[in-house]
Amino acid sequence: MMTEPAYALTLRDIRRAVESGVLTIQQSIESADKAARQAQPWLHAFSYLPDAPVVNQADIGLPLAGVPIAIKDLIDTAGMPTEYNSPAYAGRSPKTDAVLVARLRQAGGTIVGKTVTTEFAWRHPGPTVNPWNEKHTPGGSSSGSAAAVSAGIVPLAFGTQTFGSVIRPAAYCGVVGFKPTYGSIARTGVLPLAPSLDHIGMFTANVADAAYAFLIVSGFDDQDFHSSHVSGKNKSQGNDGSAVIRIGMLRRQVGTAVEPAQDSALAWLAAQLKADGAEVVVVDLPAELEDMGALVSAILAVEASVVHGALLDRSPGLISSVMTSLIIEGRGVSGVDYARARAAQVRLAHRFDHWLQQEMRLDALLVAPATGEAPVGLDYTGDASLCAPWTFLGVPAITLPIALGPAGLPLGAQLIGAAQHDERLLAVAEWVEARARWQAVKLQAKTSPDGPRNA
Amino acid sequence: MMTEPAYALTLRDIRRAVESGVLTIQQSIESADKAARQAQPWLHAFSYLPDAPVVNQADIGLPLAGVPIAIKDLIDTAGMPTEYNSPAYAGRSPKTDAVLVARLRQAGGTIVGKTVTTEFAWRHPGPTVNPWNEKHTPGGSSSGSAAAVSAGIVPLAFGTQTFGSVIRPAAYCGVVGFKPTYGSIARTGVLPLAPSLDHIGMFTANVADAAYAFLIVSGFDDQDFHSSHVSGKNKSQGNDGSAVIRIGMLRRQVGTAVEPAQDSALAWLAAQLKADGAEVVVVDLPAELEDMGALVSAILAVEASVVHGALLDRSPGLISSVMTSLIIEGRGVSGVDYARARAAQVRLAHRFDHWLQQEMRLDALLVAPATGEAPVGLDYTGDASLCAPWTFLGVPAITLPIALGPAGLPLGAQLIGAAQHDERLLAVAEWVEARARWQAVKLQAKTSPDGPRNA
Repeated sequence: MMTEPAYALTLRDIRRAVESGVLTIQQSIESADKAARQAQPWLHAFSYLPDAPVVNQADIGLPLAGVPIAIKDLIDTAGMPTEYNSPAYAGRSPKTDAVLVARLRQAGGTIVGKTVTTEFAWRHPGPTVNPWNEKHTPGGSSSGSAAAVSAGIVPLAFGTQTFGSVIRPAAYCGVVGFKPTYGSIARTGVLPLAPSLDHIGMFTANVADAAYAFLIVSGFDDQDFHSSHVSGKNKSQGNDGSAVIRIGMLRRQVGTAVEPAQDSALAWLAAQLKADGAEVVVVDLPAELEDMGALVSAILAVEASVVHGALLDRSPGLISSVMTSLIIEGRGVSGVDYARARAAQVRLAHRFDHWLQQEMRLDALLVAPATGEAPVGLDYTGDASLCAPWTFLGVPAITLPIALGPAGLPLGAQLIGAAQHDERLLAVAEWVEARARWQAVKLQAKTSPDGPRNA
Repeated sequence: MMTEPAYALTLRDIRRAVESGVLTIQQSIESADKAARQAQPWLHAFSYLPDAPVVNQADIGLPLAGVPIAIKDLIDTAGMPTEYNSPAYAGRSPKTDAVLVARLRQAGGTIVGKTVTTEFAWRHPGPTVNPWNEKHTPGGSSSGSAAAVSAGIVPLAFGTQTFGSVIRPAAYCGVVGFKPTYGSIARTGVLPLAPSLDHIGMFTANVADAAYAFLIVSGFDDQDFHSSHVSGKNKSQGNDGSAVIRIGMLRRQVGTAVEPAQDSALAWLAAQLKADGAEVVVVDLPAELEDMGALVSAILAVEASVVHGALLDRSPGLISSVMTSLIIEGRGVSGVDYARARAAQVRLAHRFDHWLQQEMRLDALLVAPATGEAPVGLDYTGDASLCAPWTFLGVPAITLPIALGPAGLPLGAQLIGAAQHDERLLAVAEWVEARARWQAVKLQAKTSPDGPRNA
């Protein structure tokens, strides 16, 4: 369990300290390296830490100079192994940085280590535990990145989300998780799981840090061939003209039913937002958007088979049983069913965009990021069904911690925005975060074992 | 066979006549209507002609005022039936214009009738004959549109291309066929055959008319959810900086081997272009682009099954055997193979774009539009394998007539440009057309039965 106060310094705290000369780049990185090493024996957030920190001695004026960053072991890093938590790739050490990593280094950031992923970002877990309670899963697949930020080791870590691999672990670990619009952070140099669903996302201690980092890493790369489901051609400004923030709450959550504590945490938050002047309306998703689960599963299974099928044929002993099942499932899906799912993805993304912006005029949807607290045990990384539909639609999603549940683990609130309106969603999330009083909840949890469970 | 001189008036001839008052809108449309009715008993270009012309009495300043236009019977027209040449849709009469048709009417154009398509734009033929020789196919699937322009009935007709359904009939009928970049003319209100391959294209008597019409009808529609394979984000200007037109000829054509007459017609044209200052270079496609046939077939079959499968299950007796085979073929394709083909489509489109513009610095590729002259007989609409790869890549393609073959039917030359550079391709094609001396060839063909066969 954590013995030190977490979130000692946020990303922008570090930047201010470095720019003002209070902290050197070397000190900042060494401090993160030390924290990573100290936590590693119990937290297991990292799949790789260099023998000594490899400090990026950048111009202190650069936006990430002195910022220690952790990178999911699915994302290529020159000079550090990238092994996908798979014995089939043991010893793999790419020569080139992923575009994301190159952008981070160019902005002055230092990669302190690689974080544990589930095998190929699917379900076979790694050794990472939940920093709030080591008997609980940190969630997956970006387990180590969520845990490393939650434990205060780094203020910024990157992961990927194909179903719910950023939002879910962030919620379980009590940090901010941000998955921007599909395609907005280039995936060149990142192992795909299902290219039509794969997103890069990030973990931070607060929303403003995510907004800061997003500006640095977002952008097209001509080797990453996807394009967003909803193009900028049809960008409307939604509710931007109004000063009142308008938030929708689904009468019925998509995915698995959530636990009562999660429900009441969201209701509590909604009341706070209303009290501070937001318009909070209960809404129903259009009927055609209520059952995206089968579509997203078909796309995942087929594309995972395309990506990893050859390995299964070559070396079946090197692939976990859950991954093997996924590949076999994908091989059983017909071209017709897969094509229908892909066509539905594009059609429903447009439908959702129109519904959210034109019909409902919402700034964001407020939904559960997970069914509740992180489940007990490390074998199962939790239910992604509350995230997968939004991943499927390619819309931006952010989760922020708002309360503690009955087991003393965090509960989050997920906000969903319109595609290509990432900055708008971040602005709304920052406004919501200011009303979620998470720092107070956390402090009480630390000072009193009987501190507020769910709010 | 044709008894009157075809191409009496081009689109822009009509526009000049209408704008200057030499011709009224009414006269122009009535003249086309009369020509359509006179040719119909032998040409069978139209699936529907109204009892009397429904003239769009537009402002004569509008860019298509007084222009008679024919529309393939796959494209919705309010007030006229759209039956897809399928008994399953007999009597279907849509209430709304396709976006394309609405744009044409808004620009002042008059729809004179619906032109014959093969069933669902696949291979089961309609009754249209080739205006040059009624024993020969006009090509398909946009059979009637190509024939109507070739016979001088209308100066502008629209069709669709999923494999080679604009370029091939245009070449067979001795007219210009233009299929712009995928997505550049919205398909809302057009029956799909395979949405990842479907394009709208047009037929005109010359390149300048196509360029004129393209400006009017191109543009996005938010109900047509595709986006181009190659985005504008990466638009490079290719060879635009140089005054010398640089044209590549493939050492080996894609698709079926072409007939000697087609080969020598292209060689003759290349010599003309060189003599007039173009740089003509023999090039080899990158190896990975040499076998796109299986990929495009997989996409077509699966998507056609998605679109038309339910009809086959419901009413097998109302679908032709070639269409039934296609649907059954599509149902046998696995999700994995289809997903691979879709991924390859995007990857190869980027590969081609880079090769054409960066590596080869070509303004256009000069290739055969078909294997040669239109085949004898109406049962088989001809080989689309010389068009399908470019449709698959989503790049703009234009064919223009250049010579007559041994049977006295036209041979064309197809020019391929870079995605999103439609205007550049049209400009190159106009330059090429001025050197192809087609009007002279045609005139000689008319005045002498022993006129120049292939040049």
